[in-house]
Amino acid sequence: MDLPVDAERLRADLEANAAFGRVEYDDSEKRGRTNRTGSAANEAARDRLIDRLEAADLDVAVDEVGNILGTWTPDSADPAAAPVVSGSHLDSVPEGGIFDGPLGVYAALEAVRAIQDSGAEPARPVGVVSFTEEEGGAFGDGLLGSSVATGVTTVEDALALEDDAGETLGEALDRIGYRGDDAIDPSTWVAFYELHVEQDTVLEDAGADAGVVTTITGITHCEALIEGEANHAGATAMGDRTDALAAASEFVLDVEAAANAIVEESSASAVGTVGSLSVSPNATNVVPGRVEAGVDVRDVETESMETIIAAARESLTRLERERGVDTELERPFDVAPTPMSERLRGAAHAAATDAGRTAIDLHSGAAHDAMRVARVTDASLLFAPSRDGISHNPREWTDWEDCAAATEVLAGAIVRVAVDGE
Amino acid sequence: MDLPVDAERLRADLEANAAFGRVEYDDSEKRGRTNRTGSAANEAARDRLIDRLEAADLDVAVDEVGNILGTWTPDSADPAAAPVVSGSHLDSVPEGGIFDGPLGVYAALEAVRAIQDSGAEPARPVGVVSFTEEEGGAFGDGLLGSSVATGVTTVEDALALEDDAGETLGEALDRIGYRGDDAIDPSTWVAFYELHVEQDTVLEDAGADAGVVTTITGITHCEALIEGEANHAGATAMGDRTDALAAASEFVLDVEAAANAIVEESSASAVGTVGSLSVSPNATNVVPGRVEAGVDVRDVETESMETIIAAARESLTRLERERGVDTELERPFDVAPTPMSERLRGAAHAAATDAGRTAIDLHSGAAHDAMRVARVTDASLLFAPSRDGISHNPREWTDWEDCAAATEVLAGAIVRVAVDGE
Repeated sequence: MDLPVDAERLRADLEANAAFGRVEYDDSEKRGRTNRTGSAANEAARDRLIDRLEAADLDVAVDEVGNILGTWTPDSADPAAAPVVSGSHLDSVPEGGIFDGPLGVYAALEAVRAIQDSGAEPARPVGVVSFTEEEGGAFGDGLLGSSVATGVTTVEDALALEDDAGETLGEALDRIGYRGDDAIDPSTWVAFYELHVEQDTVLEDAGADAGVVTTITGITHCEALIEGEANHAGATAMGDRTDALAAASEFVLDVEAAANAIVEESSASAVGTVGSLSVSPNATNVVPGRVEAGVDVRDVETESMETIIAAARESLTRLERERGVDTELERPFDVAPTPMSERLRGAAHAAATDAGRTAIDLHSGAAHDAMRVARVTDASLLFAPSRDGISHNPREWTDWEDCAAATEVLAGAIVRVAVDGE
Repeated sequence: MDLPVDAERLRADLEANAAFGRVEYDDSEKRGRTNRTGSAANEAARDRLIDRLEAADLDVAVDEVGNILGTWTPDSADPAAAPVVSGSHLDSVPEGGIFDGPLGVYAALEAVRAIQDSGAEPARPVGVVSFTEEEGGAFGDGLLGSSVATGVTTVEDALALEDDAGETLGEALDRIGYRGDDAIDPSTWVAFYELHVEQDTVLEDAGADAGVVTTITGITHCEALIEGEANHAGATAMGDRTDALAAASEFVLDVEAAANAIVEESSASAVGTVGSLSVSPNATNVVPGRVEAGVDVRDVETESMETIIAAARESLTRLERERGVDTELERPFDVAPTPMSERLRGAAHAAATDAGRTAIDLHSGAAHDAMRVARVTDASLLFAPSRDGISHNPREWTDWEDCAAATEVLAGAIVRVAVDGE
């Protein structure tokens, strides 16, 4: 099937969306955007999406947390059949890129338009979704809209989340007119595809047009607390110290070593990071008394994640014994690895072959809405190449032809599921 | 010679001074104070000191940076003879203790009054000095008044220093009426004694009444910069990272190990501390891209300090080679170890014996005005016990009888130099 994806139409959509919350970067084509849930830029981006959905003959629904779903029900389709849905998010991190999120939303819309233009006759409706507050930071930890839609978070809890200024998500959505009353329930979808920029260099290094994600890694965040004794750095002899930073330094290296050992022995995708460290009192002339460390552990297999976390615990126990510090380890965030649907992955590879595009398997170290949707239906995450792997930055870039090539793969995969029932 | 130090008179002075900038602590006798150079509390403390100096028949001089010198010239003295001077400072850190500084100023005054009461006949004048801005923080790095008086810092540079609100030291001194025009020149003094609280537990542990400092340790502050590459903690494989915090952790441990090795092998007083660490971007889910570390190195011998600093440099060079980070090491603050005068130390020990007090030798890991004065004349630093070693804190405490005992040693030492010419 020839799917006439219109690269210029897609580009026009992405460029129009990029104008909302635009952040100048330099003289090049690159630019960033700040699109915070509830902001004027966010309202404008939502308004334009709905305008484009309706212009392409999609029926628009908005749910209680502002998720937006456009549904195209062609004459060929059984209106009661479970739809194939694709999409991503429109919000961004502060000074983020213009592709992270919007590519997945507008590629889904372009796929619908290409299918319409192709004359294909889908047997089921095809949907385009934009989830609220994927990035987090304004309200909560991210993946918020897809968490509510899939029952991970209640509507009430989500609407009560407050931003730094004390406004709740409910108030913010009321203010911009996006607290809807439609139901959007991914468990009623037959399949979900999300196209996203890779945010790494695997595709670029391989020269591939698209990535087909095998598994979204699990993510565990731990907060380690190491307490020693703050003391005058001049008046306290080396032997009289309980230096929390020296202990924390061993902990950082123990976590790194545990992750490297797993990579060496069993799972190349495992990562363990101490990303944050807060030292008190943090003065050059005072022996540190207290350190808080934030640990991020991810892999495609739960077992290797648990091995790294066990090594972190052992490190703290050893430091208590050897250095006399007191320690605590909390585990406030824990998501298991999420395998993507083999059926949908197969359809994506077949679509790539049909379109003369190269697609390779890879895993995703970052969380995406597809991780939540996979809880309730078949889901697949596709990647487009990110130049130099840069993301969450105005320097984020994906060439327009790369956007179109990945959209061809997406559109082909949707057709296979919607028309052919693959 | 019997020197009738009046413990109650000394206590009354210290308690009156403690009321300026008083900080409540708890229901016990303990209390703190915030006495910032140029504040109303600082002006009141200075006014009262001058009142007490004049009441004891001392002539008062105030120099261009607000250092205050009271001079008693008894009939027995040659007015042209070089004076013996003693003193310390009246300013404090925010929420500091009531003894750190004021004990040395008012003990010096009490020593003069005790010598007056004793009928001793000094052959030379005896002075009481209070140096401006010893603690630093408001204007500059500390030891400011003694640095100007001894030529380390120019009057112009000192007066131009600005506090956080943008007021210069010159403006602050004008405002409180303490920008004088008298000359205060320690190089014209025959000897300088400073009594200070120990801020550690050596005297308490030994049950000694007073400490006689052999050497004020040298202090070097280094600022290490370690630059790696910030990256997504999920999307960046372990082998693709240049983690600035993992590198910095090795650096922290290398500095600690170098100091421990010196303690083991050659100099028990050596200390090396990484007291501050600032991580960027410091988010749990981002591989750290940049770390700044503040290093404090001290010892009574320059050689061992240089050995620790060389180890820090070698560590950074190794990390560049092994981890691919970029590093820099700056050395913005460098003071050589300062041996105290053997003559004055001997007089202090003899005075302790005369008074039936126990005095022991120790070193000072903290800097004091005596460090500056030692550049231009014989100087000696004496310590009174600090309960539990606590200082720079409202919990700082020295028992009143311990204040008086140490003041007896101070007074006896001054008499030996002023009367007997020791």
